[in-house]
Amino acid sequence: MRLSRYFMPILKENPKEAEIVSHRLMLRTGMIKQQSAGIYTWLPLGKRVLDKVNAIIREEQNRSGAIELLMPTLQSAELWQESGRYDAYGKEMLRIKDRQDRPMLYGPTNEEMITDVFRSYVKSYKDLPLNLYHIQLKFRDEIRPRFGTMRSREFLMKDAYSFDLTREGAEHAYNRMFAAYLRTFTRLGLRAIPMRADTGPIGGNLSHEFIILADTGESEVFCHKEFLDFDIPGEDTNFDDVAGLKAIFDKWTSRYAATSEMHDEAAFNAIPEAERVSARGIEVGHIFYFGTKYSEAMGAKVQGPDGKEHTVHMGSYGIGPTRLVPAIIEASHDENGIIWPRSVAPFEVVVINMKVGDAACDAACESLYTALSRAGVDVLLDDKDERAGTKFATADLIGAPFQVIVGPRSVAAGEVEVKDRKTGERETLTVEAAIARLTARD
Amino acid sequence: MRLSRYFMPILKENPKEAEIVSHRLMLRTGMIKQQSAGIYTWLPLGKRVLDKVNAIIREEQNRSGAIELLMPTLQSAELWQESGRYDAYGKEMLRIKDRQDRPMLYGPTNEEMITDVFRSYVKSYKDLPLNLYHIQLKFRDEIRPRFGTMRSREFLMKDAYSFDLTREGAEHAYNRMFAAYLRTFTRLGLRAIPMRADTGPIGGNLSHEFIILADTGESEVFCHKEFLDFDIPGEDTNFDDVAGLKAIFDKWTSRYAATSEMHDEAAFNAIPEAERVSARGIEVGHIFYFGTKYSEAMGAKVQGPDGKEHTVHMGSYGIGPTRLVPAIIEASHDENGIIWPRSVAPFEVVVINMKVGDAACDAACESLYTALSRAGVDVLLDDKDERAGTKFATADLIGAPFQVIVGPRSVAAGEVEVKDRKTGERETLTVEAAIARLTARD
Repeated sequence: MRLSRYFMPILKENPKEAEIVSHRLMLRTGMIKQQSAGIYTWLPLGKRVLDKVNAIIREEQNRSGAIELLMPTLQSAELWQESGRYDAYGKEMLRIKDRQDRPMLYGPTNEEMITDVFRSYVKSYKDLPLNLYHIQLKFRDEIRPRFGTMRSREFLMKDAYSFDLTREGAEHAYNRMFAAYLRTFTRLGLRAIPMRADTGPIGGNLSHEFIILADTGESEVFCHKEFLDFDIPGEDTNFDDVAGLKAIFDKWTSRYAATSEMHDEAAFNAIPEAERVSARGIEVGHIFYFGTKYSEAMGAKVQGPDGKEHTVHMGSYGIGPTRLVPAIIEASHDENGIIWPRSVAPFEVVVINMKVGDAACDAACESLYTALSRAGVDVLLDDKDERAGTKFATADLIGAPFQVIVGPRSVAAGEVEVKDRKTGERETLTVEAAIARLTARD
Repeated sequence: MRLSRYFMPILKENPKEAEIVSHRLMLRTGMIKQQSAGIYTWLPLGKRVLDKVNAIIREEQNRSGAIELLMPTLQSAELWQESGRYDAYGKEMLRIKDRQDRPMLYGPTNEEMITDVFRSYVKSYKDLPLNLYHIQLKFRDEIRPRFGTMRSREFLMKDAYSFDLTREGAEHAYNRMFAAYLRTFTRLGLRAIPMRADTGPIGGNLSHEFIILADTGESEVFCHKEFLDFDIPGEDTNFDDVAGLKAIFDKWTSRYAATSEMHDEAAFNAIPEAERVSARGIEVGHIFYFGTKYSEAMGAKVQGPDGKEHTVHMGSYGIGPTRLVPAIIEASHDENGIIWPRSVAPFEVVVINMKVGDAACDAACESLYTALSRAGVDVLLDDKDERAGTKFATADLIGAPFQVIVGPRSVAAGEVEVKDRKTGERETLTVEAAIARLTARD
């Protein structure tokens, strides 16, 4: 992308309404724009990050065996009356009447609808296990939306739903998602810690929140220090291996970890003081096993191997991409701006033309831009006629992992400077060596 | 994907509610499920097609210089009061009150919101031209939703919005989209004809609908036969070439073409009878130039090179992906089911294991499945233990361009049969030759 043709409205001033650093940086870099309270446009730079986050979530969902579909945002009230949640769900549910005066709602979650999909088609245990997910907008009418897209009203959620014949099967489905989530957050550059959690309005009896530690987190969390070093399941994880996944789950639940709602002061204090972590955290995922709560109420049954009807066991598994983006920023920034992990960076490299119009600089920039783009690297070419200071500040602010500085003096020697945004290290390389360095992914 | 682990609920019977073939086939193949009137879930098979349609739209939008963002579905009523459309838009607009009793609406289109984005950031002609698009859900509360996702209430739309300093600039923006649309529809396997159209509630003075000819089309259309053979702009089209794009526009508007609203009987009858096409059509895209209608009302101005303020000229450009999927089916099916163009096929190849459990068949299927998948071909491996007739019928129904039939007899000779879904031609090939044939894209 050439900056001269891009739409990346950088704000010069820090926006006053932003209370936390991610919100401030997302506004300043032109990633998002508020349209109404808790409702945002994702501007081009933000959209690029969101797409990459979604792509990683999707890859790991697919790897674990989950299957993608897309349910609509609007739901009929009838479905929710079946489960009993229509009245139980409070004012957070946005209730709507259509032109025929039929009661509808903007889905805050999809347990009812997916159960309806399931019961419409699946009749035999032979079609199980099944895990269906979508990445779709949700609406929750928060009384106090804040922190930008961290706590918004219209937000994106990846929600997966598992269906199994037995409780044991459902536990394996739970462990699959547990492992998939560990992999997902790691690929996003985050260390997330699973913590026993309250099941809230979803219901059920087994639930973990995945929490990343950040000073601006809304929840107070408590855990054992060892979590910071536990191994993450590898790319070769066999998601059909019941015992293998159970071992991952056991390992990652073997030490104390709890949000304040579930906190057990005595158990926590039993940990040697040096190994206690007491911090603030951001919830980035939440998984639930709730047995037959919805399948029972809505008649989701299959014929078992015994020829009898069995009510299926279900779980649901959420990740919020529109919350993950600010969460990653909270975890990775400095006083100059964002420091994106390469996996989700809107641009992996910014090529900075220090003297637009200078034939040698222009040519070197074009050759870098073309070579990197062809190699599949997302490059932003800063071809705007602006002061060096502005260009450097912008490149730091938007947080691309690498900057390539192309100035007349170094270009005359056939060289460019490559700066690592995270470490600040600079290296002078030939154009060819710079291309080789930047196309080599870890 | 292995069919034994996939969710593809084929219906045995033709659904009674379906009035047109695409609706019937989308229900039968388990591509969609109706959730409420005009509101659908895209089941996994349908979601795959929808993703591919979106990817092609996105590629062509990007190629033409448009930039992607993502606006929210819910909008504040205030924006629409500014443009005057809040009262003018009828009952098709879904009006909502949030918990604070603020009037909101589920966006039926986004002219107001994008104008708000624009005026918030863009102040100078130097930042023009600009074309911003998103692919986002819309809601229009149709009094009579029908034909499945062809005319639904919650639907996906790609809507682009151009901003230019002058009318001439805006015309070039219009021609860019005009050419991008021709390319897009062709890549989707469709021949779309641009027809002068009424501007309706969007307003403005220049507008074309892109119409594909199909017996089930809702509109009556009239055009010159030559349209069926006009050249499509190539991949190397230079979207900055003002004269070049104007020539494409001129060519494609040089012959008579009109929907019934704009039909001129006398002009049409002046065409020699053998060259007249009078048919039914499906609208798959609609582009508008509407000048300063929204920018004037909402104060979207930039400073021009003359130092003065200029109200920007705008256009908007829509394509409906959730309507394109059935439109493609209408244009490409036979009595046995769908015939997908390879570019949007949910699976490009179905590998049919005729004898699941037979070591040689299983091994040949695995090697085909692995080799094709590694080559980036979307393969469905039918590894279910079902009758041959059922397998063939399913493969035909879901319309993958190629079937590979792996039976014990041919496998003993090291061979498999490759069937072309469209022509019905069958060819016996070695496994290696089959892989080479199926990985070679046109």
